[in-house]
Amino acid sequence: MTTPATGLHEDGSPERLAIDTIRTLSMDAVQKANSGHPGTPMALAPVGHTLWSQFLRYDPDRPDWPNRDRFVLSVGHASMLLYSLLHLAGVKEINADGEYSGDPAVSLDDIKGFRQLSSKTPGHPEYRYTTGVETTTGPLGQGCGNSVGMAIAERHLAAHFNKDDMVLFDHDVYSLCGDGDMMEGVTAEAASLAGHMKLSNLCWIYDSNQISIEGGTDLAFTEDVAARFRAYGWKTLHVADANDTVALADAFRTFRDTHDAPTLIVVDSVIGWGSPKAGSEKAHGEPLGADAIKATKKAYGWPEDKDFYVPEGVAEHFAQSMIDRSRPLRESWDTTFATYREKYPALAAELERMRQGELPDDWAADLPVFEADAKGVASRDAGGKVLNAIAKRVPSLMGGAADLSPSTKTDLKFDGAGSFTAATPGGRNMHFGVREHAMGSIANGMALSYLRSYTGTFLVFADYMRAPIRLAAIMEVPTIFVFTHDSIGVGEDGPTHQPVEHLATLRAIPGLVTIRPGDANETAQAWSVALKQSDRPSALIFSRQALPTLDREKYASAEGLQKGAYILAEAGGGDPDVILIGTGSEVSLVVDAYEKLRAEGVRARVVSMPSWELFENQDAEYRDAIFPPAVRARVAVEQAGSMGWDRYVGHDGATITMSTFGASAPLAKLQEKYGFTIDNVVKVAHEVMQGNGK
Amino acid sequence: MTTPATGLHEDGSPERLAIDTIRTLSMDAVQKANSGHPGTPMALAPVGHTLWSQFLRYDPDRPDWPNRDRFVLSVGHASMLLYSLLHLAGVKEINADGEYSGDPAVSLDDIKGFRQLSSKTPGHPEYRYTTGVETTTGPLGQGCGNSVGMAIAERHLAAHFNKDDMVLFDHDVYSLCGDGDMMEGVTAEAASLAGHMKLSNLCWIYDSNQISIEGGTDLAFTEDVAARFRAYGWKTLHVADANDTVALADAFRTFRDTHDAPTLIVVDSVIGWGSPKAGSEKAHGEPLGADAIKATKKAYGWPEDKDFYVPEGVAEHFAQSMIDRSRPLRESWDTTFATYREKYPALAAELERMRQGELPDDWAADLPVFEADAKGVASRDAGGKVLNAIAKRVPSLMGGAADLSPSTKTDLKFDGAGSFTAATPGGRNMHFGVREHAMGSIANGMALSYLRSYTGTFLVFADYMRAPIRLAAIMEVPTIFVFTHDSIGVGEDGPTHQPVEHLATLRAIPGLVTIRPGDANETAQAWSVALKQSDRPSALIFSRQALPTLDREKYASAEGLQKGAYILAEAGGGDPDVILIGTGSEVSLVVDAYEKLRAEGVRARVVSMPSWELFENQDAEYRDAIFPPAVRARVAVEQAGSMGWDRYVGHDGATITMSTFGASAPLAKLQEKYGFTIDNVVKVAHEVMQGNGK
Repeated sequence: MTTPATGLHEDGSPERLAIDTIRTLSMDAVQKANSGHPGTPMALAPVGHTLWSQFLRYDPDRPDWPNRDRFVLSVGHASMLLYSLLHLAGVKEINADGEYSGDPAVSLDDIKGFRQLSSKTPGHPEYRYTTGVETTTGPLGQGCGNSVGMAIAERHLAAHFNKDDMVLFDHDVYSLCGDGDMMEGVTAEAASLAGHMKLSNLCWIYDSNQISIEGGTDLAFTEDVAARFRAYGWKTLHVADANDTVALADAFRTFRDTHDAPTLIVVDSVIGWGSPKAGSEKAHGEPLGADAIKATKKAYGWPEDKDFYVPEGVAEHFAQSMIDRSRPLRESWDTTFATYREKYPALAAELERMRQGELPDDWAADLPVFEADAKGVASRDAGGKVLNAIAKRVPSLMGGAADLSPSTKTDLKFDGAGSFTAATPGGRNMHFGVREHAMGSIANGMALSYLRSYTGTFLVFADYMRAPIRLAAIMEVPTIFVFTHDSIGVGEDGPTHQPVEHLATLRAIPGLVTIRPGDANETAQAWSVALKQSDRPSALIFSRQALPTLDREKYASAEGLQKGAYILAEAGGGDPDVILIGTGSEVSLVVDAYEKLRAEGVRARVVSMPSWELFENQDAEYRDAIFPPAVRARVAVEQAGSMGWDRYVGHDGATITMSTFGASAPLAKLQEKYGFTIDNVVKVAHEVMQGNGK
Repeated sequence: MTTPATGLHEDGSPERLAIDTIRTLSMDAVQKANSGHPGTPMALAPVGHTLWSQFLRYDPDRPDWPNRDRFVLSVGHASMLLYSLLHLAGVKEINADGEYSGDPAVSLDDIKGFRQLSSKTPGHPEYRYTTGVETTTGPLGQGCGNSVGMAIAERHLAAHFNKDDMVLFDHDVYSLCGDGDMMEGVTAEAASLAGHMKLSNLCWIYDSNQISIEGGTDLAFTEDVAARFRAYGWKTLHVADANDTVALADAFRTFRDTHDAPTLIVVDSVIGWGSPKAGSEKAHGEPLGADAIKATKKAYGWPEDKDFYVPEGVAEHFAQSMIDRSRPLRESWDTTFATYREKYPALAAELERMRQGELPDDWAADLPVFEADAKGVASRDAGGKVLNAIAKRVPSLMGGAADLSPSTKTDLKFDGAGSFTAATPGGRNMHFGVREHAMGSIANGMALSYLRSYTGTFLVFADYMRAPIRLAAIMEVPTIFVFTHDSIGVGEDGPTHQPVEHLATLRAIPGLVTIRPGDANETAQAWSVALKQSDRPSALIFSRQALPTLDREKYASAEGLQKGAYILAEAGGGDPDVILIGTGSEVSLVVDAYEKLRAEGVRARVVSMPSWELFENQDAEYRDAIFPPAVRARVAVEQAGSMGWDRYVGHDGATITMSTFGASAPLAKLQEKYGFTIDNVVKVAHEVMQGNGK
């Protein structure tokens, strides 16, 4: 490994100048913010520079070009590397209205405002917030998972849109990963699937710096990473020195020439390269300090007292290298697409809709209507029917389950849907394997690449994929997470498989729309709401067991779901004596209790409340119409924990909910044990009415 | 692979009889329950039988013998395999009082009651519920992680307790894993760490049956698993036919003779072996059906019309094989321990305390008391001091962080603590690497093996380890989960690293004690509460930023934390006009607001509320004394989402909480942006007082 010395710029090469500009901008920004991670940008500046200046197909003027190569900074803490690259490349901003503002995506002032409120340079890169950031990263492993989703999307889009004479999609996906990524299970899951799918459009660069936060990686991580990836079916390459830009370029060329497997390039690097703290965990997550920065700049042959110094011509030269290579490709793509639009107007329109996040006009034309049926149907089954009806008309709708599709009913069964495989990338059924975490992360990557992606597993296993659900919400991408087997309704599988706390934990995520429909027609509405989101992910919560399909002549229309909560039934004749609230499988239970109360002469109201978030989006007038402030006798019934229900039942109401884990038994036995019976709902309703002087 | 044929019992071997008894009991139990997973027990009966009858050191009369080999059924859905083995082996029950009841752990009636309410045979094996179940399994990968924790515990206990002349610990840990386990990221993390730690006492048997729920494993899982494990540093073996008990025994012998690496035995099997559905996903998760069962019994040479048939002598022969091998070992251990008790009374007492889940009398002798200090100390720092003070006196307290100990302050720094490594298994600092999920699962395995284990990471990464936290609560083991960087107090790292919803998601888990202390003295109390738990896991939530250490002469004692919520300060002179509630870093904010209100003449009360769960455990009198029902002007302040706070503030109070994700900026800017200022708390307090007619 080369070691730094003074006068390194004797060669005066623009390449080296650019690399050291990235390094010094990173050091200076972290120092000024008094917060951040300087070491990795310093180590990987040559990698970023080589990739961007020589390989990445990316027109800085058109950061939304659909066929651009994707660059994912999975090591999100090294955000200054990305910000420096975006700045030097002169990437242009796309503003909140989706327009080219003419401003730089990241200005030098933005870099000086690193990690400050409202700057374009937050601590970790944030999608939507900074143009050129392809995905929000920071939580380790997520960028790796996202990149697999992006590579899958490219394969699928290519299969779907490319014509023999016109190629719209043939881009690559690069992800820069660190030791932390490599230790995370989500990365392992994603890499195994990528190898299985032979995603040769995917290149991970593994920054092997031998350093972790607690000290050397030999404290905890001594496996042979390259051998592991070969076991997954990847091609692996090794670059022994991150400063060896010739070897790096060779490796990227080999990746480009590899057509049967994803590529892992293991790059040995020195964290904080050139600084007195080089090779130490002390260079990782804190400012280097003024003295060390001076010493480092000296070692680089850099002006020691200039902060945020970008030597003349460096940015221009770097940007030009990208423009020279990529602009002709992008312009040629534009020309191709103009012809494509004439020749294949329907497909072209479809692609444009996908880019805008819009649906075909007739997307809901086949939305099924379910007849009233006391025996009914499980909402997972109804969900499968609805999904298929929509997916047939929405080609971008694509997803699958973590090896549970026969149970989650999330497979597309119509002709032409097919399975997505290495040999059939036009297929739309994903087989994620038993890899919930990667599934979520991959689905987000697909959503970032124009697809309306969905996932499927049991609700209890939402625990395995919390991080990507949260990130979908932070990124404001409309990934759809389907969760079935949603309560003690799971029955005999017992407490390990019976979600109790999971509804609350999903409702707690800002931005996520959680919907638990009460019957088949609410299920159709739930899917419809999820499809219409453009900037919010959804969690659709379905039952394992059959739910009666309510008679919508007798009770209110299921379209009320769109408002989150609605009056399904009421006795009328003035303000209700008691409000019974149910969600999902408990809606019909509450309706049965209502009928009994009504027969007794009680003025009860039933509120079906499939989605708290949709309800909270309504105005106060609507909310007060559903839950009149004066009516405090309220009972919420849900086969889940009570967390959060006090918001709706208050101090004067009651909940019939789970206060413990469940048990292994047939459902009817469990409902008796935990009080989910008509008699108990009626009893509790009387109690709260008494407590409220009714 | 051998295929079934009639008359297979021509050899009349007791081994084959026992194996087919396991198979038929499993089929019959699933059929009777009309629910469950017959295929894997049928496939793996020879594996279970070979291991238990020839290798497992396990005295059926003493299922709590500390040096018994551990058998983990990571494929928890194959629970009938374990129940059949426990039944045939004649394992004796230890009842809820910890006594030998004389009853079988699993009777034939229990097997007939498979998956029924209150039977000893729930759908997935449950620790504490059924004697002989070493850990609760079902959520895939967890058993694998647990087994690594158990193997670590064995190594540590051996280093700590064994003497040159007296070996108390030298047992092995076996885990039976499936394709699903192998696809899960948590398994990958745990396996990488096990290889790093050279846990040669660990043997995983990988049931490679080529079948997943969606179809063949080639749909999603074509990696070379054995090569991957070799990359982790494991020894790998292959048994080409699960029915080849000779090859299985050879493999187990090789494992026993391997002293420098964990062992993976890849066993090729046929799911539902012998049945018409053999080798198909249809044999996985549903009853075979009466006809297929008959056909299968016929193929086994079994009486076709007998259900739950245990041929005479089968159980006795199987049990005897275990007794012959293991009872002398166990009796010799008892003798050794009697001598050990005389020679090393302190160590012997320590081990007995650990087995009982008790602490040394003087465990809290060094619990620090922190002086009042306006500048204060971060609760993560105070937590580190408290942990060290306790750990010095509690040798079983052992844990570490997911590569974040310099930040979480969870390392033990006193002489002799050391790091747990392959070479130094007596060390107590665990280096889990960036593997949060495995960390949680491993910590549970350690907790199941007498250790008081703790973990450390940032609160936002609780998302990566939800499943093991939940399982600790289900199993009622007192694992301690330390989470630091607990709010927007993280500041510049931004929304990806700022927990918002995580407190709610932890509070939603039944049984888990979540504590967010407000200053250094509450932190000491929080650790003390966590230590005292014997059947509940704890989540300790600490700040990144400094918190003022409150003057406990002026305000109430921090011991109030033990009740979950307590009156920290109040103006007095009758019922308060308003109750201000704070947790963690917001306690001092609320105190400052209180002082201002008091100066204005408002009768305010400050409630510090570090733990909802501890508070809910108090009687109604105490709860009403803290929150008098008549006082409805209440303001809860917490730098987290509002989910659940309505329970305490009701319809007439208010919360100052986060309704969105945070942002990247210095904390003071964020507090201003989101309203966590003295002025805003005072303002909101006035608003709720007005709303309540004060």
